[in-house]
Amino acid sequence: MTEVRIISRRDLSFLIDDVLSVAALTSRPRFAEHNRATFEAVLDTAERLAASEFAPHNRRSDEAEPSWDGRVVTIIPAVKAALDAFSAAGFLAMRANAADGGAQLPETIVQAVMAMFMAANIATSAYPMLTQAAANLVANFAAPEQRAFWLKPMLEGRVFGTMALTEPQAGSSLADLRTSAEPAGDGTWRLTGSKIFISGGDHELSDNIVHMVLAKIKGTPEEPTPAGVKGISLFLVPKYLPDGKGGRGARNGVTLTGLIHKMGYRGTVSTMLSFGEERPCVGWLVGRPHQGLACMFHMMNEARIAVGLGAAMLGYAGYLHSLDYARTRQQGRPLAAKEPERPPISIIAHADVRRMLLAQKAYAEGGLALCLSAARLVDDAKTAPLDEERRRAALLLGILIPIVKAWPSDYGIAANQLAIQIHGGYGYTRDYPVEQLLRDNRLNPIHEGTNGIQAIDLLGRKIRMEGGRAFATLVAAIRETIAAAANHSALGEDRAALGRALDRAARTTAGLTGVPEADRERALANATVYLDMLGRIVVGWIWLRQGLAAAMRLDASAPPAERDFYCGKLQACRWYMRNEVPLVEHQCALLDAGDATAFEMRDAWF
Amino acid sequence: MTEVRIISRRDLSFLIDDVLSVAALTSRPRFAEHNRATFEAVLDTAERLAASEFAPHNRRSDEAEPSWDGRVVTIIPAVKAALDAFSAAGFLAMRANAADGGAQLPETIVQAVMAMFMAANIATSAYPMLTQAAANLVANFAAPEQRAFWLKPMLEGRVFGTMALTEPQAGSSLADLRTSAEPAGDGTWRLTGSKIFISGGDHELSDNIVHMVLAKIKGTPEEPTPAGVKGISLFLVPKYLPDGKGGRGARNGVTLTGLIHKMGYRGTVSTMLSFGEERPCVGWLVGRPHQGLACMFHMMNEARIAVGLGAAMLGYAGYLHSLDYARTRQQGRPLAAKEPERPPISIIAHADVRRMLLAQKAYAEGGLALCLSAARLVDDAKTAPLDEERRRAALLLGILIPIVKAWPSDYGIAANQLAIQIHGGYGYTRDYPVEQLLRDNRLNPIHEGTNGIQAIDLLGRKIRMEGGRAFATLVAAIRETIAAAANHSALGEDRAALGRALDRAARTTAGLTGVPEADRERALANATVYLDMLGRIVVGWIWLRQGLAAAMRLDASAPPAERDFYCGKLQACRWYMRNEVPLVEHQCALLDAGDATAFEMRDAWF
Repeated sequence: MTEVRIISRRDLSFLIDDVLSVAALTSRPRFAEHNRATFEAVLDTAERLAASEFAPHNRRSDEAEPSWDGRVVTIIPAVKAALDAFSAAGFLAMRANAADGGAQLPETIVQAVMAMFMAANIATSAYPMLTQAAANLVANFAAPEQRAFWLKPMLEGRVFGTMALTEPQAGSSLADLRTSAEPAGDGTWRLTGSKIFISGGDHELSDNIVHMVLAKIKGTPEEPTPAGVKGISLFLVPKYLPDGKGGRGARNGVTLTGLIHKMGYRGTVSTMLSFGEERPCVGWLVGRPHQGLACMFHMMNEARIAVGLGAAMLGYAGYLHSLDYARTRQQGRPLAAKEPERPPISIIAHADVRRMLLAQKAYAEGGLALCLSAARLVDDAKTAPLDEERRRAALLLGILIPIVKAWPSDYGIAANQLAIQIHGGYGYTRDYPVEQLLRDNRLNPIHEGTNGIQAIDLLGRKIRMEGGRAFATLVAAIRETIAAAANHSALGEDRAALGRALDRAARTTAGLTGVPEADRERALANATVYLDMLGRIVVGWIWLRQGLAAAMRLDASAPPAERDFYCGKLQACRWYMRNEVPLVEHQCALLDAGDATAFEMRDAWF
Repeated sequence: MTEVRIISRRDLSFLIDDVLSVAALTSRPRFAEHNRATFEAVLDTAERLAASEFAPHNRRSDEAEPSWDGRVVTIIPAVKAALDAFSAAGFLAMRANAADGGAQLPETIVQAVMAMFMAANIATSAYPMLTQAAANLVANFAAPEQRAFWLKPMLEGRVFGTMALTEPQAGSSLADLRTSAEPAGDGTWRLTGSKIFISGGDHELSDNIVHMVLAKIKGTPEEPTPAGVKGISLFLVPKYLPDGKGGRGARNGVTLTGLIHKMGYRGTVSTMLSFGEERPCVGWLVGRPHQGLACMFHMMNEARIAVGLGAAMLGYAGYLHSLDYARTRQQGRPLAAKEPERPPISIIAHADVRRMLLAQKAYAEGGLALCLSAARLVDDAKTAPLDEERRRAALLLGILIPIVKAWPSDYGIAANQLAIQIHGGYGYTRDYPVEQLLRDNRLNPIHEGTNGIQAIDLLGRKIRMEGGRAFATLVAAIRETIAAAANHSALGEDRAALGRALDRAARTTAGLTGVPEADRERALANATVYLDMLGRIVVGWIWLRQGLAAAMRLDASAPPAERDFYCGKLQACRWYMRNEVPLVEHQCALLDAGDATAFEMRDAWF
């Protein structure tokens, strides 16, 4: 097998420069120290490290998954070496404030950097992703003393972080969390309970681990803890307690009770943790009591973008592998020249193989573009000069987030299926990387809110948000792109297809927002259809934006390689508009009719 | 985890009795020794053995896949124990003629039996599946002496069989096979070459192994071997040569050169074999020279039904596991009663979970019904009393086979995805069986002719076959069911939906069969769309037949459990007609337009 690219840097530059105009961010005070060249340098370093430190052990850490002898978790040494290199290059601090030692990079660049590491090795990338998320919570909500103690080592990679939310009995239902916290009287808390599926929950990759734990404060008759999610608070629980002299002290009462053995993502140690079972478990409240979920929501957009992006990049990696395979594997002959005496042709010469590559291109590049667009909205929501711009970006981001999380995870998997199929029997073997990509990707529709939950968030909440303003803002944004495309005859069919689908979706959405309270459960039975339908529109929009950027630059004077690149973008845009976007019609018909087939299905009938 | 059913016997009886009238076959001479009760006894034994011998080691043989120390292949002992029980019960001979010691069972029952073993453990089931296929070739094409020597031990399980077709450089392109055979002068042949992906290619599960090998006879100037597939012959190559006294003699020159490590299906040893490398490899010609593919075609229908059925049964197994999980797992609350003080509900009470179960039911039960219907056509093509009936069955079978192979493998995987999703994070762990089912199933779109090749077979050959008579026969058969459903008002919407889609598909097909030769390669670029489209129609038909059978039996006097069963069938039929069948419209629009997006995509544009 030849060495395959981790990502198309040409594609990434196209998105950053031509579609998202990321360099324009440097005119804003927060990013004033940066320019296009510093962004490029960061991306170069990331690509180099991803290729040299992350990619080479991707298969090995799948085969030799983390093990536990009851005392210590063992992970192949290449993981620590890669993470040390990642930390040393300052990537853990790329999002953080300069005042905290961070690089204060725009979210768009942060996610583009992570995209490369995830394409190279999603499992190893999970450790810094979680650590950045935990550091984000510490930076924003921890008490000054805790912040001062933990933030710097987290940004430097001496302390890693986890998100300890899920419990065995609760799964997606945070309302049912049982882990509890009691005040110890000295400002600290004592935690009791257990958590499951905690990624990075125990290892020797860093000096210490900080768990961000959701728990319920034990109420009193005078001060009862609200039931359900309203009673959840956030705690910082380190594996080793501070020794009081700025260093690492005794083991805290958080203990590993078992490892989870997964289908994929095996390099990321997944753990069951117990709090306060063998010895007292000391924690510090982060944020205010009962505000745990509010704190989590603060970083949920970034976390959901990261999950969508990881899924897109696994799809992207499979696309590039299968493209390479299709170009080098010789087999079969064209229909018009089938004589067996003729030499076989590269399988990319078979139209059905190009179909599978084109679909992958549409899904993978579409997913990457979608996630980076969302990251650009994070930047705008935080740093756009005008109030109104920030507000618009936040609205758009809000309605897009369920799609950004779910769409790439559904279609990244679809891309991975095609990558295997192009490889034929070889793709089913563990000698080629594509089967692992599918196994790794299968987690993404599940974690960080299952796609079913994203669907309910979108149809049950987001489209009604502020009287439907988010949806109206989205429709207006798409119409703007459609209008801009009117100047390019090459996009005539594409803008018409998207426009038709958008009109249909808008009518259907209007009907759904008007559903009376009593019928909402029934309407929500089709939430997944709605999510997939609106995702199709949104990714159509993302593709039209790419098509527009390509059409603007495609002229006779462009060098041949550039022309090829833009033609590829236009063809993928066309494929998506012809093959995917028209399905909106069928889905809207189901939604308009309020299809109740699943809703009315009874347990006893199965 | 509770013990989960391997298959719904109620469903199986429904298909055998109410949909396919299998008992009617016993009026035909070949099956005259049988009756409904003997069928039931065979199915009971199969279910018992599948549960007691096949299911228990399904996970274990995935974890401890076959290994090779350079000398002997080691497979966990449970596999041999299961296969010995299978052979002892006579299942290897269930299809064979009574004169050869076989049970002479109808193909419909043979496949129903295999369905249970495949649902329990697809990897262990592969050995007898291959042995039955090889025995079929030996019975029909081997010279009398070879037939007399090999057939009985194969039917008794003392000798296992393989299909040695694929070569590393050739993959799907049999025209490029390089394995060659030279006459030794004594009636035997000497084979040279290598094969890859040979399932069951070496092991100690049986006393001997017989490889059915495709190879090209070395031509002479006087008698040149035709190029391409026309020059392929079939050879019988045993692992151990006969000792001349009716027993097992010396090792033959077929040697194992390596094991393939796969994503799933791991319990089936997959091998690379070399012929005539270390020592001469002796083979016997089976059938006439250059007629190798014709021999293979003789059992290809049964083999493709078996692959489709395996895929359907993996989907079925996941459906039953996730149904069990959805009924027992407590989580969340209904929208109308979300107060966290209330106890959580079983997740089957969430409409989105019922949606995922209903889709699985439609795919899994639809796939099983499709494959058994095809098996019924095999029986009719061979044993129907009238010439015309046999001919009609053969035509229908011919056009259905690509769908029977491809549809369940695509939608069985879709079902497996949903089974994992219902399990949430647990479904992604190796502690639950659903992730293995997806990994196992991923082989099915690849082997026995990739689904892309099935698509080209359907659109490029089968719909034009005999001037379109096969397609016309299929359309007429579907219209018959639609007409029969007119008597049942409960099916009004369903028959209308299927009728609309069928009209559309017929128009589109007429247009495609008229494509001039020069445009065929371009038209074939959409073969996969056509296969999926026609598959949707055919499975809609299969569901309407089930709906019809249910509607006929659903009356107020039926016992409650029976009513529930029929209501479930009607609801799944409805779900399929509403959710899947209307997509035909979009696919036909693409086909009518002769969408050339993939066809025109250039290598350099990727």
